[in-house]
Amino acid sequence: MEFKFNNDGLIPAVVQDYRTGEVLMLAYMNEEAIQKTKETKTSWFYSRSRQELWNKGATSGHTQTVKKMSYDCDEDTILLQVEQKGAACHTGERSCFYRDIELGEEPTFKRDVVNQIYQSIIDRQE
Amino acid sequence: MEFKFNNDGLIPAVVQDYRTGEVLMLAYMNEEAIQKTKETKTSWFYSRSRQELWNKGATSGHTQTVKKMSYDCDEDTILLQVEQKGAACHTGERSCFYRDIELGEEPTFKRDVVNQIYQSIIDRQE
Repeated sequence: MEFKFNNDGLIPAVVQDYRTGEVLMLAYMNEEAIQKTKETKTSWFYSRSRQELWNKGATSGHTQTVKKMSYDCDEDTILLQVEQKGAACHTGERSCFYRDIELGEEPTFKRDVVNQIYQSIIDRQE
Repeated sequence: MEFKFNNDGLIPAVVQDYRTGEVLMLAYMNEEAIQKTKETKTSWFYSRSRQELWNKGATSGHTQTVKKMSYDCDEDTILLQVEQKGAACHTGERSCFYRDIELGEEPTFKRDVVNQIYQSIIDRQE
């Protein structure tokens, strides 16, 4: 299997709950992390901040048992379907994707309009 | 919203079917792609090979209507939950993750053992 690693020798891995389909997290693997994940059927990643391999849940107990491992058409992304014990996110949330981005009109824009109107009122008062 | 872009000014975006939970693809967004996705509620990405913005499905007709957009704890990954029209993958497969990686013992290793035994037999015959 030949994967396309990025300039840092890493490949992104999407981690998904194998039962519910919930996307839990995204982390990065190097060649060794891929091998260890295949061999142990638990997820291994490469920490970009700590610059070391880590076995997810080794300290927290929030382990991931890998049920299925796939790769994409471009061979530059991996997908892990796992049985997640406890929370996947270090914040204690089950998934790292616990915050939404508002779709549609940009809230900042609306706030700018209000600010402009407010400023006009102030200006006219003076 | 402040996202952490990589050295190329990009952030990975996981795309998931909003009904089934199936992970369809992973692509990269720049600041403009994020804005356009929010505004149009269709997915926009930055093509690293073509070095340009693309609106998924604009040529193929395989559009993605964005139902939900989230970001992760580290603010360096985006998740899109979409209504996928047709196939997400350019190969015609519904998902880009259509190939599995075998878990457990490394097949290459097993093949090596067989090759060693075969070589021993050949050696003894000579």
